[in-house]
Amino acid sequence: MSLTVPFKQVDVFTEKPFKGNPVAVVNFLEVDESGVTQEELQAIANWTNLSETTFLFKPSDDKCDYKLRIFSPRSELPFAGHPTIGSCKAFLEFTQNTTATSIIQECGVGAIPLTISDGLISFKAALADYEAISNEVIANYEEAIGLKFVTAPALLHTGPEWIVALVEDAETCFNANPNFGMLGRQTKQNDHLGIILAGPKKTSSIKNSYEMRAFAPAVNVNEDPVCGSGSLALARYLQELYKFEETTDITISQGGRLDRDGHIIASIKKEANGSTSYHVAGHAITVIDGKIKL
Amino acid sequence: MSLTVPFKQVDVFTEKPFKGNPVAVVNFLEVDESGVTQEELQAIANWTNLSETTFLFKPSDDKCDYKLRIFSPRSELPFAGHPTIGSCKAFLEFTQNTTATSIIQECGVGAIPLTISDGLISFKAALADYEAISNEVIANYEEAIGLKFVTAPALLHTGPEWIVALVEDAETCFNANPNFGMLGRQTKQNDHLGIILAGPKKTSSIKNSYEMRAFAPAVNVNEDPVCGSGSLALARYLQELYKFEETTDITISQGGRLDRDGHIIASIKKEANGSTSYHVAGHAITVIDGKIKL
Repeated sequence: MSLTVPFKQVDVFTEKPFKGNPVAVVNFLEVDESGVTQEELQAIANWTNLSETTFLFKPSDDKCDYKLRIFSPRSELPFAGHPTIGSCKAFLEFTQNTTATSIIQECGVGAIPLTISDGLISFKAALADYEAISNEVIANYEEAIGLKFVTAPALLHTGPEWIVALVEDAETCFNANPNFGMLGRQTKQNDHLGIILAGPKKTSSIKNSYEMRAFAPAVNVNEDPVCGSGSLALARYLQELYKFEETTDITISQGGRLDRDGHIIASIKKEANGSTSYHVAGHAITVIDGKIKL
Repeated sequence: MSLTVPFKQVDVFTEKPFKGNPVAVVNFLEVDESGVTQEELQAIANWTNLSETTFLFKPSDDKCDYKLRIFSPRSELPFAGHPTIGSCKAFLEFTQNTTATSIIQECGVGAIPLTISDGLISFKAALADYEAISNEVIANYEEAIGLKFVTAPALLHTGPEWIVALVEDAETCFNANPNFGMLGRQTKQNDHLGIILAGPKKTSSIKNSYEMRAFAPAVNVNEDPVCGSGSLALARYLQELYKFEETTDITISQGGRLDRDGHIIASIKKEANGSTSYHVAGHAITVIDGKIKL
């Protein structure tokens, strides 16, 4: 492999550079996917050192706009939240598409529908399943986080396996200082990715507005700055808790303790056929724009 | 701050993309340094998530070619090895200088002379001091690394405070599996940055050719892929061990366990006035080339 292709590093869940969660996006729209190996893609993702690096290819399915392959520094992922929003933003800029209102992304979990409205990019979740966990596991997590949870935490299958736990209020969430060593051992033991901790903002309805943090020390990420799949897990957890009967937006801030300032809207949508779907939306801004030499 | 300036991400100690150690370089040569704050520079370095991000400014001292400010994700550093080589490469490209054979970099530790020859960029160390450590500390480090050292390790002051330890051969070094938790606690306790582990390659003189690894779990870097200051520490350690009386090049490979393939030349130079100076040289290649929006 010796070629130079367009590259962007996009900041997601923010409109201000350096305040969101970055994703590196390599434009392989003009490159045959069979011309690059899994090892080559992995080497690039290992080198950027970001939580995710993505590769845009021509779709193999005609109804999709592009195919996305998502890599962490260590492995390929079937799906990830902020990389999906950042890669859609990059795709629109690479193709100079300023008018699209809907896009379909082909990726490991299938076709993901995205909508674009007033600069806000939203994806529909392929998976958001709820599962209760035992009191013993809950007690252990309370010890690791160092706080009492106000409702019973649960395991949310969103691709990543997140535990969602609520504390009293946004301030309590912001000030939490987990024991990362203990939390890493516990989550590894239980096969959970990590913990999504959230507290309601008192200025709003406690059902709709949250401060959130995402801890995943077992995969070497003590704290993720702004987390798409985590916000999806939180929305699905709140639906179980509050049984919303109408379409509801959950607004989430995240990242303050890491000097970021991320903003996420996680929506619980009531479809015409009576089913419920989950959506995650945010802004994205291209910060680095150029070419990458392979 | 709202401007767009040239940006490069350079791979250092390699001629093949993704095989070395990356540094992000922001070109502020046309920006007044007083126009950007410490916090703004720190936010950029936090966001790139690389071990170092650097900022090129006009020099304040006329005899220097540029001023370099070097940031880790958490703090500003007075000096760093691979970022110096990568930033010099970027400076030459930004200024379209293809003929320079010597450059002077102004940075936190003072003026650093660099030479360029056949694409190899070399800097002269400002600091390389040797200090013995106690047998008790050595025994603890042997336990954390899981290997017996073949000579007494020492503390090398190179800016970073590295312990250098030699094992039997290159293969033993390559195969080492340290206990990172234990090593992190020990290095933190002793105020050492981490351990440079090296083993001689048996195909060469055991004095001149090494496999090297750099472990710094106390600052969240279990293993640094290719380490300039570590190679300087190794050369200074070897000078104490072998008392070289002539100018000697130490060739070092590093990074194999992290799928990198870095090559460093650390030189012990005998100056005309009888003094000894230490130099680190390597190739560098620009991988990402474009602009960054601030």
